[in-house]
Formats: sequence, structure tokens, C-alpha cells
Amino acid sequence: MDTAILLISCRDQKGITAAVTNFIYQYQGNIEHADQHIDSQSNVFFMRIEWSLKGFALAKPKIIAKFAPLAKKFKMDYSLYFSAETSRMAIFVSEVTHCLYDLLLKFKEKQLFCQIPLIISNHSQAKKIAEDFNIKFFFSQKNPQNKLSAEKKEIAILRKEKIDFIALARYGQIFTRQFVKAYHTRIINIHHSFLPAFAGSNPYRQAYSRGVKIIGATSHYVTEKLDAGPIIEQDIVRVSHRDCLEDLRFKGQDLERTVFSRAVRWHLEHKILVYGNKTVVFD
Amino acid sequence: MDTAILLISCRDQKGITAAVTNFIYQYQGNIEHADQHIDSQSNVFFMRIEWSLKGFALAKPKIIAKFAPLAKKFKMDYSLYFSAETSRMAIFVSEVTHCLYDLLLKFKEKQLFCQIPLIISNHSQAKKIAEDFNIKFFFSQKNPQNKLSAEKKEIAILRKEKIDFIALARYGQIFTRQFVKAYHTRIINIHHSFLPAFAGSNPYRQAYSRGVKIIGATSHYVTEKLDAGPIIEQDIVRVSHRDCLEDLRFKGQDLERTVFSRAVRWHLEHKILVYGNKTVVFD
Amino acid sequence: MDTAILLISCRDQKGITAAVTNFIYQYQGNIEHADQHIDSQSNVFFMRIEWSLKGFALAKPKIIAKFAPLAKKFKMDYSLYFSAETSRMAIFVSEVTHCLYDLLLKFKEKQLFCQIPLIISNHSQAKKIAEDFNIKFFFSQKNPQNKLSAEKKEIAILRKEKIDFIALARYGQIFTRQFVKAYHTRIINIHHSFLPAFAGSNPYRQAYSRGVKIIGATSHYVTEKLDAGPIIEQDIVRVSHRDCLEDLRFKGQDLERTVFSRAVRWHLEHKILVYGNKTVVFD
Amino acid sequence: MDTAILLISCRDQKGITAAVTNFIYQYQGNIEHADQHIDSQSNVFFMRIEWSLKGFALAKPKIIAKFAPLAKKFKMDYSLYFSAETSRMAIFVSEVTHCLYDLLLKFKEKQLFCQIPLIISNHSQAKKIAEDFNIKFFFSQKNPQNKLSAEKKEIAILRKEKIDFIALARYGQIFTRQFVKAYHTRIINIHHSFLPAFAGSNPYRQAYSRGVKIIGATSHYVTEKLDAGPIIEQDIVRVSHRDCLEDLRFKGQDLERTVFSRAVRWHLEHKILVYGNKTVVFD
Repeated sequence: MDTAILLISCRDQKGITAAVTNFIYQYQGNIEHADQHIDSQSNVFFMRIEWSLKGFALAKPKIIAKFAPLAKKFKMDYSLYFSAETSRMAIFVSEVTHCLYDLLLKFKEKQLFCQIPLIISNHSQAKKIAEDFNIKFFFSQKNPQNKLSAEKKEIAILRKEKIDFIALARYGQIFTRQFVKAYHTRIINIHHSFLPAFAGSNPYRQAYSRGVKIIGATSHYVTEKLDAGPIIEQDIVRVSHRDCLEDLRFKGQDLERTVFSRAVRWHLEHKILVYGNKTVVFD
Repeated sequence: MDTAILLISCRDQKGITAAVTNFIYQYQGNIEHADQHIDSQSNVFFMRIEWSLKGFALAKPKIIAKFAPLAKKFKMDYSLYFSAETSRMAIFVSEVTHCLYDLLLKFKEKQLFCQIPLIISNHSQAKKIAEDFNIKFFFSQKNPQNKLSAEKKEIAILRKEKIDFIALARYGQIFTRQFVKAYHTRIINIHHSFLPAFAGSNPYRQAYSRGVKIIGATSHYVTEKLDAGPIIEQDIVRVSHRDCLEDLRFKGQDLERTVFSRAVRWHLEHKILVYGNKTVVFD
Repeated sequence: MDTAILLISCRDQKGITAAVTNFIYQYQGNIEHADQHIDSQSNVFFMRIEWSLKGFALAKPKIIAKFAPLAKKFKMDYSLYFSAETSRMAIFVSEVTHCLYDLLLKFKEKQLFCQIPLIISNHSQAKKIAEDFNIKFFFSQKNPQNKLSAEKKEIAILRKEKIDFIALARYGQIFTRQFVKAYHTRIINIHHSFLPAFAGSNPYRQAYSRGVKIIGATSHYVTEKLDAGPIIEQDIVRVSHRDCLEDLRFKGQDLERTVFSRAVRWHLEHKILVYGNKTVVFD
Repeated sequence: MDTAILLISCRDQKGITAAVTNFIYQYQGNIEHADQHIDSQSNVFFMRIEWSLKGFALAKPKIIAKFAPLAKKFKMDYSLYFSAETSRMAIFVSEVTHCLYDLLLKFKEKQLFCQIPLIISNHSQAKKIAEDFNIKFFFSQKNPQNKLSAEKKEIAILRKEKIDFIALARYGQIFTRQFVKAYHTRIINIHHSFLPAFAGSNPYRQAYSRGVKIIGATSHYVTEKLDAGPIIEQDIVRVSHRDCLEDLRFKGQDLERTVFSRAVRWHLEHKILVYGNKTVVFD
């Protein structure tokens, strides 16, 4: 079933919802989901609205043009998506592969609505996995010296493969500011702690040293500031004094996969709106 | 701040959301929250919409009359509430008083938007608590023989106190069919298990005997069938072989309070729609 | 590092712990872990004790003989395991393969201390997976008519492969009483509900129909009574009215993997004692 | 039932458990619970052992003297408690009283094994509550200027009331180094975040600003460094973009009570051993 999805944000005022729903009704669209939220602190209006294209009187390519005057009137930021036009996702990964495996298996079971044409890694472990799943593998060795040139090659292949979205499935390298800008709110990372606690490297070791009784995982959009981007999803699992560092890693793996795949799925289903350093996740 | 809240359900068709939001916009209402849901199995449309009455061009008593034609057109079931007009809640309780205490403390801290004019009990433990909180206490002893006459007296005092809503804060008695009908979807119970497991009496003992590794609590609307009404909220806590029956009770208490007060709060804020034997809980 | 593990249960009386720890100390063993539990209802003593074999003055094959008099004195049920002697696990699976994949990946990452020489299935989906992981695949079609003869063949290959332990990774067939007896407390199942709720077939559909707000997964030893054996581990995830049946399946998958792999891991590490229809899980 | 409880820590070596259990058996003690843990990083042995005093051949006052040689041999740090000799707990509280209420109600329901002779506050809200529960109330106004003299008076009354243990039930003041030293590992605080995230003031505001998807509460022993002492217990609850700051406070309250009362209970039952900046919590 093909649907259209509008993600909207603008300064709150009277009549926005009426105007948007009228627009859809006017062309005989049937609204499948509609959810709105007003951030009362900043007085910003957020909306996600999805309607069936079956019987919709406007052809897909004409929707934007017809919607534009309304958007202009309310000074909207908005994006239009079609559920039938799936995103093209690239996965970056380093040595640890459980998150990569998880995305690939969920993709295979048709639980992630996307295409996965490309895996990029600075290690060789993922090569065999990419082959097993018939996905192009691009090896991109990186060090502080070659980072800029390595990223240039990465961007070239990302463009060639028409990648819309990047999932960092436990990727150990930090991107340059330019790279992050090029894929603004289109890179999702999984960090193995409940951010903002234990940002940076070795979060399980940090958690073990601090003696916490719960460990967490956080999936967030990547911004220029390390592990400080808008949080999409978090979850936790209990640990005790009996758990050694290795146990934390073991317990954390299941958590990382679950949190990461939820965030990726929501992004692919256009359920996330970023504002400031926060996210609205329409469920 | 005074707002109007509409809870709507009807067969899904095109234009419902547009019609409702237009209605509000036409009288200069500003929508604060709007959420809808379509149950795709039964093709039923659900909506909760809340708008500010500040500057709304219709006086409160006239809203229903003006909305009626629209409701008729779409064959809506609907209810209209005003946030400034708080419900009048009665609490029934037996010997165990932690859930009663919790509602009263949360009420005192202005976290429950209601009035609490009445506590009814078949035990005397709650009398002192009612006095401490300046609430009328009605002692209603019950046994299989006097149940009908006892309920008659209870209904009389409930009517006298203009009670809209009944919270069963660990109340050990089962109501008759007539009583339940009189307060259809207006009685919320807390059951100390993750229903449908361990319905009926002594759920902690049942859980202990079965050797479960998690125990739960469930808050639901009361229907004629014991512990089988529409579920509003559930939560759980982990237990282990080290926990004896008494430990289950101790751990469960915190759970019961949390689950129960959430359900009561959502009801008081008109966030729940019942359909069939399920609930839509708009958050 | 090689350790010895004793799992003990017997009627409680004075001096058991002293006798066992003295036995170990007498031969210069260093206790790594010791945990005991007394079920006060039944007055039964449970113990798990693990000691390093480095410098232990008794050779492995002689430990049982030397321990026997002590065990006899206290009328102990006991089992002795060596951490270096890993179990041989067979996995049974039907069409749904995420739990199978999860065990295999965790095995590959050295998080499950066992050997996996055999996968048995009544469907063909797992064949390719078995090949990818270099594991023998045995196809065993089953129907009510051929069940006994099919199980005979299964038992023959289980014996040939010296299987100690069977993991049912979403296996849709019910074993006969004889089969279950032959592998008493050596078959672990994953059931996709929080048992005892929603036993039997289609638990997600049952949960969806009941309108629960949490769904669960339960890992338990298989007994003659369907889904009623001793529970090892359970966990849950929240759902809402927005989740359709398919969403429940998606959310439940991560849960099933996590709960199942925990139970399997604990069994392989000899951390579980079964008594009556319950488990003691030493952590 | 009266029991003796030994909490032991020392450098790990062979024979500790055997020696301790022999000591108890030699005087005909029946061990009710025994749990040990070895921190493999630091090679430190921890033990909690509890035995019935019914039929124990040593009188209570003589146990220490008889145990001393064994303790010396293994260079143990140890403490001996008797379950029948309950601790005397003082509660410090500021304006927010839900954690205070919770301890008092649980005390009243005999779920906290202690005496509560004293409540100290820098605000007047708790005065009426103290009276309702028949507990002495001491008002102690504090500001940076009078802190030392105020604490002097507090310590005087704590000593007069023979207080063993202090529970900070949302107490907004920071103690001096001297005060903390005087009650080393005998002050438990509840902090309303998942430490180490959001230490310091206004943790809910910090969490709201960061846009986290879970909020937490942490109970820990108070040390000189603010919100940095050994963590005893933590738990979390999910939040979403729909939750405003006030909602975080509401959701957090139930969490704070639960986490705090668990930590206090475990302390009162002598289940916690502190080492370095961590805790072993025997369950």
C-alpha cells in the first residue's frame, strides 16, 4: 500500500491542523495516521500525517507544488515522503559485527523498509558478511593522516550508490565536520551507554569503574559534537557486582541491537523530527 | 488554563479529521493536542482532540449543539469534557491501604485533577486515613447475603455525592452486574498480577507457586467478568528464587501504586477510549 | 581456566556448607563462587559451588569417589561438572530462524560455552544457515502419523552426536512423553509470551486480542505438559494500541532472542537447579 | 527469629569459606543464607553469611571474641549484626515529601526493620507529617554562613537519639566533610537521575534539556564528592517528547520512592558491602 507522509514543523498558530487536513481531504485522501505535538516552551508545532494515495486526486509529483502555498502561509519546514519509495541505506561498521548482523537479518525478514546496497568498513571482518548477504563491500582504511582523503572516497561511493541514510553499526571512527554536514540528520549512531553518561570511548569500562547498577545504550543522530547529537532511543539492562566487564559487554550487545534497530526503523518510516538537539518520535 | 477535550470514535471514512479540525478552527480554537488512531482490523477511527477555550467563539454550553450535526453525519460516538471541570472520584478500599494512600498523596500534590469527596470501605482501617485527609468515610460491611442491599446504600451515597468515577484501591469485594452497569467504564481496578495470568484471588501466591521470574500489576476497567475488563496499564518487576511470598508482596506494592495511579490519572485527563475489550490510551 | 562445579540439593540441616567447603579446602581447592539458597517452605537446601582445579590435589576422575561419603551422609542430589568440558548442544528449529541465528552468532563470538554439532528441523529454511556455520543439518519431517518413528530417528542421531542438551529455537512440534523423559531437564524452549499467560499456539495473536499493554517471552525446561515446565527466565516489552499484530511479532523477536540466549547460557554454565516445577538460577 | 549476620571482606585466599562455615558449625549454628563474591580485578573476597541463633552454643556477646583469631588470620574487615537489634534511623528532608512519606508508610507496614526516632528538616513541611507518625521533629535552618554550627546541633541530637543511620529523603543541603566522615557509609541519598548523568541540581531540568528518552533515579552512599558516592540501586522509566518538565517530575517520583526504599531496606538488612567506590549488594 502506498501512502504519503508529511513531516511538518513551524511556529504554532491557529488553523494549521485544519489547513493540512483540509488539503488532504480536498483531494480525497484518507488519513491513516495523524499525530501532532506542540513544544510549549518554544511554541513550536510538530506534525506527522500519513494518508493513503489510493484514490488521491493529485499525482505524486504534483503534491509539493499544490502544498507550497499552504506551507508558505504558515512558514513551515516540511518534508514529503512516499512509503513505497524506500531509502537507500549504507552501513558503516568496524570490528564488532552484532549490530550489522542484526540490521541485515531484520532487512532479510522485511522488517526494515529500505535498500542496503553498501557496507563500508575500516576492518575486514564484515567483508564475508557482506558477501553472504550479497551487498557491496567497500574497505576504507582510516587514520588521522588520511581521514580527509578517505572520506572523499567514501562520499564518492555513497553518491554513486545514491545513499540517503547512513547507519553506524558500531563504527569506531569519528567523521569530519564536513562529512557530518553532508549527511545532516541522516547518520544514526549506536552508543553503548545511556548518554549523556559515559560518552566517548570504552563506555562499558567507564560504567564498570563507576559501579553502576544499570547499563544502557543510546541511538542518536550524529552531529559535530561527539556523542552529543539528538537522542532517538535509549534502553537499559540491570547489572550487578557479579558482572565483570565481559558480562557487561555480553548483556549490552542485546541492548545495542534492539535500541539501534528501533531507531533505524523509525527513521526509515519517517517518524522522527529533529528540533534543536532533541527529537520528536511519532509512534 | 481551560481546554475542551473531544473523544471520538466512529467507522473510518474520508474527511473526519478535516471536519473536526475545521469545526474548531471556525470558532477560532487553537488545538493543543490532537491524536488519532485507526484500528485497521475493525476499521474504526479514534480521536482525542484538545483545544484552548481562550478566545474560542462558542460558549461552553453551546458547543454540543453546534457539533451535533457533524457528529451525526459521521455517526460518531463522542464525549466532550472541559479540563476545568474536574471529576468527582470515590475510592473503594479494603484492608490494604498503600494504593489509597498513594492516590491521596498524589491528589494533595495536585497530580490528580479531580475532587475526592468519598471513601467507601468494608473494613475500618481506612477510617483514620480518611479523617487525616478530610474526606467523608462510609463504612459498608458486605457479605453474600447483604450484597444487594449494601450496594443500594452505596449507590445512594455515590449519587448524593455526585460521583463520576470510582477507583478500586485494592478492594476485595466483587460488585453485582447491576452496579457495574451503573458505572460502565467508570470503575478502575488494580489487580496485582500481569493479567490475564493469575486472575482471581491471591495472585502473588499463584505467581509464587508457578515460579515466575517477573511479577506484574494491571489496571483495568471493571466489567461483569472478573479481572477480564479492558486493560489500561500494566507493568512488571523482576523476582528471583530468593524472594519469598512476602517479598513478592513488598515488591508488588510499589508496582501496584505506580500502575494504578497512572491509569487513574489518564482516566481523569480523558485520555482513554474503550472499544470492545481493549483501550486506546492517548499519550 | 578449568574449574569444578558442584550443584547440590538436599533436605536442610546443620553443617552442610561447612562439610562441602571443608572437602574442597582439604584438597587445596580455591573457591571461586559459592551461593546457597534454602527454600523455607519445603526446607530444601540448594548450593552451587565452583572451585579452581589449579593446584587441586584430587585428579578429576577421583573427585566423585571421594565426595560420595559426604553426599551419602546428607542424602544429597548432586551433579559435578568441569568448566573445560563443554556440553554438546543440538538446536531444533522450524520456520522462524531469528533465535537460531542468535545462538549461532553468540556461539561464534565465544559467548556460549558449548559445541553445536547438530541442527534438526522439520522445515528446510535452516539448511542454508547450518551450512554457513558448518553444522550438520538433519531434516526430520513430522506429522501426527509418523511422530514416533521420526523421534526414533532423531534420538538415534542425537546419541550418535553425543548430544547432552537440546535448545528449541522456536520449534513448532510437540515431543512425545518418551522423548521428553529421555532428555529430562535437558531441553530448553522459548515461548513467546509471559507464561502462564497465553500458553499454546499463537501467543502474539492471543495477546493482541486481549489488549495487553506488555508482551513477554519465557524460557523454560520442557516437561510433558505443554508450556508448563520450570521457568528459567522471562522478560517483557511495552506495546500500545498503535501496535498491530505484526508489530508485536517484531518487538517480540528481540525479546525472544535475549530471554532464550540467557537461559541457554545459564544452563551451559551449570547455574540452574530444578526443584518441583521451579528453578533456582544462581547468578 | 533472631539471626547473626557477618559481613566480611579480605584479600582472597584458600580456605576462607571453609574456616567461616566451620566456625559457625562448631557452635551448632544453622546457616540460613551464605553468599560470596570475589572481585577478580582486585582479588578481594566478599562474604555475607547469616545463621540462626536458635541453638547456637555461643552467647551473642561472646561471638566477636571467639571469631577474632580467625578474622586476624585472614586479615578480615568484618562487621557482626543481629537481626533482632534494629538500627535507629534519622530521616533528613527538605520541601518535597514523597520519599519521606514512603519510608514512614513502609515502616508502619513493617517492611523496614528499624526504629525511626527523628526527622530533621530545613523546611517546615515535614513537621505535620512527623507529628502524624509520632516522630520527633527537629527544625534546622541552614545557610552557607551557619552550616557548621547548624551541623553541630544536628550531630548533637543525632547522638542523643543514638542514630546509626541517616536517610536523605530528598534533602537539598550539602553536608560538610566532617559530617560525612562522622557517618561514613551510614548516609544514603536519593538522587533523581541515573548517575553519573545529571549530577548536581535540577536533574530533571537537565534531563529535559538533553532530550533523553529515559529518566532515572539513583540511591547511593554519601561521600565528600557530590553525587559521586558508591551506587546502591538505580532504576529508570521511559519518557517521550510529550512529557514536559512537570511530567518528568511526576514520573520520577514513583521511581525515587522505589529506588530509595530498596536501598534503605538493603542497608537495614545488612546486605551491602562497600569497597572502593562500589557496592556489593547481596540479594
